[in-house]
Amino acid sequence: MTLEVGVLGYRFMGKAHANALSRLSMFFPDAPDVERSVLVGRDEDALSDAADQLGFESIATDWEAVVDDVDVFYNLGPNHVHAEPSIAALEAGTSVFCEKPLAPTLVEAERMADAADKAGVPNGTAFNYRFIPAIQHAKGLLEAGELGEIHHVRGRYLQDWLVDPEAPWSWRNDAELAGSGALGDLGAHTVDLLRFLVGDDALAGEMERVSGHLQTFVDERPVEGSDEMRSVTVDDAYSAQVEFENGAMGTLEASRFATGHKNDHTIEIHGSDGSLRFSLERLNELEVLRADDNRGYETILVTDEDDPYVDHWWPPGHVLGWEHTFVHENYEFLSAVESDGAFEPSFQDGLAAQRVLEAIEASDEKREWVSIS
Amino acid sequence: MTLEVGVLGYRFMGKAHANALSRLSMFFPDAPDVERSVLVGRDEDALSDAADQLGFESIATDWEAVVDDVDVFYNLGPNHVHAEPSIAALEAGTSVFCEKPLAPTLVEAERMADAADKAGVPNGTAFNYRFIPAIQHAKGLLEAGELGEIHHVRGRYLQDWLVDPEAPWSWRNDAELAGSGALGDLGAHTVDLLRFLVGDDALAGEMERVSGHLQTFVDERPVEGSDEMRSVTVDDAYSAQVEFENGAMGTLEASRFATGHKNDHTIEIHGSDGSLRFSLERLNELEVLRADDNRGYETILVTDEDDPYVDHWWPPGHVLGWEHTFVHENYEFLSAVESDGAFEPSFQDGLAAQRVLEAIEASDEKREWVSIS
Amino acid sequence: MTLEVGVLGYRFMGKAHANALSRLSMFFPDAPDVERSVLVGRDEDALSDAADQLGFESIATDWEAVVDDVDVFYNLGPNHVHAEPSIAALEAGTSVFCEKPLAPTLVEAERMADAADKAGVPNGTAFNYRFIPAIQHAKGLLEAGELGEIHHVRGRYLQDWLVDPEAPWSWRNDAELAGSGALGDLGAHTVDLLRFLVGDDALAGEMERVSGHLQTFVDERPVEGSDEMRSVTVDDAYSAQVEFENGAMGTLEASRFATGHKNDHTIEIHGSDGSLRFSLERLNELEVLRADDNRGYETILVTDEDDPYVDHWWPPGHVLGWEHTFVHENYEFLSAVESDGAFEPSFQDGLAAQRVLEAIEASDEKREWVSIS
Amino acid sequence: MTLEVGVLGYRFMGKAHANALSRLSMFFPDAPDVERSVLVGRDEDALSDAADQLGFESIATDWEAVVDDVDVFYNLGPNHVHAEPSIAALEAGTSVFCEKPLAPTLVEAERMADAADKAGVPNGTAFNYRFIPAIQHAKGLLEAGELGEIHHVRGRYLQDWLVDPEAPWSWRNDAELAGSGALGDLGAHTVDLLRFLVGDDALAGEMERVSGHLQTFVDERPVEGSDEMRSVTVDDAYSAQVEFENGAMGTLEASRFATGHKNDHTIEIHGSDGSLRFSLERLNELEVLRADDNRGYETILVTDEDDPYVDHWWPPGHVLGWEHTFVHENYEFLSAVESDGAFEPSFQDGLAAQRVLEAIEASDEKREWVSIS
Repeated sequence: MTLEVGVLGYRFMGKAHANALSRLSMFFPDAPDVERSVLVGRDEDALSDAADQLGFESIATDWEAVVDDVDVFYNLGPNHVHAEPSIAALEAGTSVFCEKPLAPTLVEAERMADAADKAGVPNGTAFNYRFIPAIQHAKGLLEAGELGEIHHVRGRYLQDWLVDPEAPWSWRNDAELAGSGALGDLGAHTVDLLRFLVGDDALAGEMERVSGHLQTFVDERPVEGSDEMRSVTVDDAYSAQVEFENGAMGTLEASRFATGHKNDHTIEIHGSDGSLRFSLERLNELEVLRADDNRGYETILVTDEDDPYVDHWWPPGHVLGWEHTFVHENYEFLSAVESDGAFEPSFQDGLAAQRVLEAIEASDEKREWVSIS
Repeated sequence: MTLEVGVLGYRFMGKAHANALSRLSMFFPDAPDVERSVLVGRDEDALSDAADQLGFESIATDWEAVVDDVDVFYNLGPNHVHAEPSIAALEAGTSVFCEKPLAPTLVEAERMADAADKAGVPNGTAFNYRFIPAIQHAKGLLEAGELGEIHHVRGRYLQDWLVDPEAPWSWRNDAELAGSGALGDLGAHTVDLLRFLVGDDALAGEMERVSGHLQTFVDERPVEGSDEMRSVTVDDAYSAQVEFENGAMGTLEASRFATGHKNDHTIEIHGSDGSLRFSLERLNELEVLRADDNRGYETILVTDEDDPYVDHWWPPGHVLGWEHTFVHENYEFLSAVESDGAFEPSFQDGLAAQRVLEAIEASDEKREWVSIS
Repeated sequence: MTLEVGVLGYRFMGKAHANALSRLSMFFPDAPDVERSVLVGRDEDALSDAADQLGFESIATDWEAVVDDVDVFYNLGPNHVHAEPSIAALEAGTSVFCEKPLAPTLVEAERMADAADKAGVPNGTAFNYRFIPAIQHAKGLLEAGELGEIHHVRGRYLQDWLVDPEAPWSWRNDAELAGSGALGDLGAHTVDLLRFLVGDDALAGEMERVSGHLQTFVDERPVEGSDEMRSVTVDDAYSAQVEFENGAMGTLEASRFATGHKNDHTIEIHGSDGSLRFSLERLNELEVLRADDNRGYETILVTDEDDPYVDHWWPPGHVLGWEHTFVHENYEFLSAVESDGAFEPSFQDGLAAQRVLEAIEASDEKREWVSIS
Repeated sequence: MTLEVGVLGYRFMGKAHANALSRLSMFFPDAPDVERSVLVGRDEDALSDAADQLGFESIATDWEAVVDDVDVFYNLGPNHVHAEPSIAALEAGTSVFCEKPLAPTLVEAERMADAADKAGVPNGTAFNYRFIPAIQHAKGLLEAGELGEIHHVRGRYLQDWLVDPEAPWSWRNDAELAGSGALGDLGAHTVDLLRFLVGDDALAGEMERVSGHLQTFVDERPVEGSDEMRSVTVDDAYSAQVEFENGAMGTLEASRFATGHKNDHTIEIHGSDGSLRFSLERLNELEVLRADDNRGYETILVTDEDDPYVDHWWPPGHVLGWEHTFVHENYEFLSAVESDGAFEPSFQDGLAAQRVLEAIEASDEKREWVSIS
């Protein structure tokens, strides 16, 4: 069986997933056969060029015609077009894989998760960082109880592409189109990763309440190619304090104003028996300290043959890149589609992250802690 | 003129300051002559041994007799004995140097700062980390505007000496004696360092409002040498979000449960033109990124001849230790005493830090943001 | 025009190059069209499976039939089969790309380089590390004179896969098949990278004389799946001292016994105006110190849009992996083939590296310095 | 009993040792009492000022009068005045502590070691880096066999104070006065540290043969305060390859031309069961990898209570500086003097290091490997 995949979106994420799809046969021979069937967008010329380059067999400007034709629908458009096509696809019984954050508003995210539940087909939210070998290795340590009881969790996602006030306005600066700013774009990754790593009941459990802080440092930005200035209606940065079910404390943060940081997503966890640290810009490495065996952090290069996914690639010490996370993610999602199995992170996981983000925003407005429903 | 110094406290801080006093003549020949005159404590035998080892000429068990005899009074006792002797000394016109945090409660800290103002003599709060060459270098960069407008500030102080639930109870676990836990002991350092570095109006200004979170992970601890368990009435860890006058965002954190971290105080600052990072466990280094000159952080070994204080010590690359911060601090304080000049951090600075800590605690109780008066 | 590529070898290097060939169209649209035409090997079944997985259209067990049929011949077999098929291909006017080291002996390498010169077609030695963006960035700095006069050069390639005396014998342990051990396998990379970086006359120039040291720590190893022990006839590790034309000093080293190091190739250079450091296990980073601007090394993440090759991939901070070096290398080589242009590193570069390796071995035998002819 | 100490030399090393002597009573109360009795030099005014600052009771311009008056003689003068006063002191039955390298020539070093043996009194060569807690911890691991059989050893000492051709001439540039350049000044430390760490028969054993390379990059330098240029007759940098008794390979290197490096002494060791790394500029840390327990290097902060010497100082995580090595060294040496015990590194150790340095120089001249007698 060959899975026909329809993909909405052909920019950054379109390329990242098309690349992933194209690499499965060589590196994951047990993955289902996939056909990059149809690429969906609005601008026919650009779309046609993209389809050529990204290896799609056809193009379409109308997603409605596509979503029930294909076996799998990838929704990689901007946040405000996540809900409608995804729900339509699900209603047509098509498996859906949607970029994060699941939707610009909690209401839409709930509708999407409901639709996924009703459809009963495999569905996924594209939190690709779960599929980094080092993160999977961390997950393994945590699940095995090697860090003991969790006390502290830290997540930080730093970029700097807006620190220049002359940096042009984009849809990512608009509340209608993006939902939120750094919070939704970057914070969604952090919230999901922490849920993935310590969310088990035996570890820290779910996030119970948060205190949030959002800030917009530059209120309006120039529109590229014009004299117009347009308002920035989302946050440039956020921070949050979190209390987990088991009493663990968390601090979260993301910014587009962290001068010198390009894509610096770091996770730190302290448990009663050990600690760990991870940084996306050194994604092949995991720093681990187990109190029984270590006096300091051990910098593990997670590229050994028996490390998660690594046997599919290269010998020890031959490092992977950012894009490999998409290959692993696509492999898992498409395998779930083929076997009609479950996939995580699902739309429900996307929704759970959204609830945290929404609570952070609400807390910032009210200036008080907010419980996560 | 030789300054006679009376010191209350002969344990950890007593040793740190006695050492500092003993080293001035060799390394800071322009410092005033000092005499380690009298060491004050309660247990005469222990006191006598300590005085011998630490080079004091006499001992006293009654601080009241001491505070107006000496030229300078160092109050290095536990937090709950900071107020009374310090105020008495000030009232006697004696210069006072007091360990941090200034007092266990804001009320006492205010009384102390008032007394200092009335006395009009040099007074200091022992925030020794201001006197690290790397921190002074950072201050220089910030004051010169090299980091531009400040957007983000981060301060974290991680220790792990209480992560074992069997670690014995001490006065540091008691609200009456210590005021607070990690917040006062460690957070005080963080708050002061950030005030020192970015508190200028031209930078981030003062902290305006905070949201705090305190947590006690282990509620009671064994009393050493007995079967008794005693309650832990202070925080094991705290976190806080801060908004500064200029809109900059801060996240603060300290813990005694950060497994594997011994004395890990880190400061990070992002401005529109650059960023910097500092870690106490590598206190000879400062990481600096200036957007105009650098693409990444530059790891500067702050041990060059023209770095702050360094010419007093050794050639470039010959690193200093934690204790040197006390020598610099004592040098500055005693020089101020000799010249009847001003010293910073003063009692007012100690009070200012206390106000932030108190607001963090209040915020945690109310579960809402609290303005700093 | 579509270039038909024939590839001898389908294991590690076969996969690395097949992958590179398959990715050109999506990421380097201006690269020539290539067809993975024929895969050459001895074991038909294995070959057939590999061809399927790696996307080759046909297989052949006889390289002689292949080398003049295709437009480009990739020789990725073990070292002892480098010479004959490569020379045959060149004699047939076919462009040849050969894995490193060029040959097990200097004599064969010379024959190959001669054949390449006579053929006058593009030819390349697969020193893929030249094509790491961070290395290209380093090269740019060096060529621009930013490091000044070169004084010191250091290259070290550490692995540990033979430290266990029970690790099985392979062709890499055999002088006949491999030529040498760590020296040829790893040292070849180091020598080429240093030649690339500082070999210009304006920098350090060529290596003039060397003093070498080879060591075999374990003399015989078990043959997998049998009771037999077979002799190790190559070095497990080597070190060398080098003097360059301009008087610069170099130290080189490689080992298969460096416990804990998997693929740790590091380069360090000190010039009168600056220094730099690179490590293959963190290949997205370059540490640079320019005496005029820096006091310490600056850790540059070489993933900006205007960094070499990076605009073909992902936004800043989205790191590349080891395999991307092959894509860049293949892109450059095939572009040279298409335009009938020159490619570096050529067979002459492969030969030049070989001369250094041979001199290191000769020096070890004679226990004296040896000039590089 | 109070030991009267006479010290020749009052500059860098004079200050380092005077400081160490002054700190023993507070931090090493079981050390013998010492009196900084007499400071010896040539320039009476400078000497008198130095004695005041460094806490000496008297001064002398004639070492001959001093060496048998005192209990202990510290020879901290330039290398060319090491032999005569040291030998005279030994002949007078006075314990002698001499700065490294022991002498500018092997002949003189042998005479000194002979005199020490004949005198039968405690004698020491001031290789202070043996007394770094992290190095002692490394030694403990090595002695316990935790690294297994030693295969590789690396030592590098990088400075940059001569990279500027205008940097003034000093006695350190003169063969008569200094013996050698980077080799003797820096290489002596490296050779001694490696002998200390792996020199045991059960580990790598002694260095058996070396291949050396010396280079002088700048041939003459300006004399400060005059128009004169004076010849540089020593090496600016050296490198060496070493073979140890057990077949382990070593590479050594030092330079005064390593731009950006101030006092960067690094040691790396690979054994069959583990590896370790140390850097003087981060002297509180030791990086350890034990193959059984670790997958990567563990960065140990060697400041725990049960780490060597640390209980004398501060709580865990409160880092020590470069100067503390002298306190430990003086403590050990003076304790040996008091108990008439043995001290290592002795003059014999100083001589052994010298033999290696001499062999490196001889090898460089002959351009061949030289055995160490």
